[in-house]
This record gives sequence, C-alpha cells and structure tokens, in this order.
Amino acid sequence: MNKFDFEVKISLKKGILDTQGMATEKVLKRMGYNINSINFGKDIKFSLESKDENSARKIAEQIAHGVLTNPVLETYELNIIKPEGEN
Amino acid sequence: MNKFDFEVKISLKKGILDTQGMATEKVLKRMGYNINSINFGKDIKFSLESKDENSARKIAEQIAHGVLTNPVLETYELNIIKPEGEN
Repeated sequence: MNKFDFEVKISLKKGILDTQGMATEKVLKRMGYNINSINFGKDIKFSLESKDENSARKIAEQIAHGVLTNPVLETYELNIIKPEGEN
Repeated sequence: MNKFDFEVKISLKKGILDTQGMATEKVLKRMGYNINSINFGKDIKFSLESKDENSARKIAEQIAHGVLTNPVLETYELNIIKPEGEN
C-alpha cells in the first residue's frame, strides 16, 4: 500500500449567506481597510493508504463528497498533493 | 485604484490538538476508510483596492496576520490570486 495526500477546499455555494464573511468585512472596513469582499471556507488536508493513485483518488472523492462537504450548502475542490519534486 | 484578490490558508500550529480532525478521523475509520491523518484549516479569500501590487500585499499581510489569524494557535500562508492567464 502507498500513502497519498489530498487537499479539499470547501466553500459556500453562490447565494448562500456568508455571515462570518460579512461580519469580518464590517470589522475590516471599520479598521479602515479598503476591502471589497471576504469569504470563509475550509481547507482540509488528509492522507490515506491505497494500492495506486487511481483508487486513492476514488476514495478521496467519496470522502470529500460524502463526509466532508454538505452538498446542499457547499461546493468542494479536491486536489492530490504530490510529494516535492514529483509532477 | 486597482482590485487585488488574495487567498489565506490558516492551519493549526504543530502540537496544537486538532479535535475536529481527530473526531472526523474516527468516523472515517469506522466507515472503513484507510485514513492516516486529517487536519482542518480555514481557506479565506478576500479582495481589496490598492494603488499597486506591492502596497496591496502589505495590506493583505496586515489583515492575514493581525485580524484573520490567531498567532498563538495558528499559522497562515498568504497568496495573491492572479487573474486567469496572468503570471
């Protein structure tokens, strides 16, 4: 078995109110920052064991879609993290 | 003034207990996934107005370090998001 590292970036779907973002935007503007918009999301990194990259990607997709993301409110972007120097 | 987009990825410092990660790891293992580790962080995107890229980066650094990150518990990685096709 080999170890594969993944990163999942989860963000709110368009149209879903980002209350944390709105509150932070207010604070930043009050502090004098010339901010247009700010959106909060999750950045989750995980590693799993699998026999090859293909099956690792399938498992990672299941985890990202079925466990880590709320499909009603959120969208996600899944990327494999290649070891340094490997492309 | 020009618009500049930034992304800040915030993660817990080494040694700080990631309770959300531990709880999720337990659930995933119980579901039969061969997971080694899972770590939760924040992915924050914001855009601000500034006269040039240099001053935009300075402001973004202040926001990332001074407002968005808890320097006792967290570390951050700040990147400018270049418009498509521009490097």
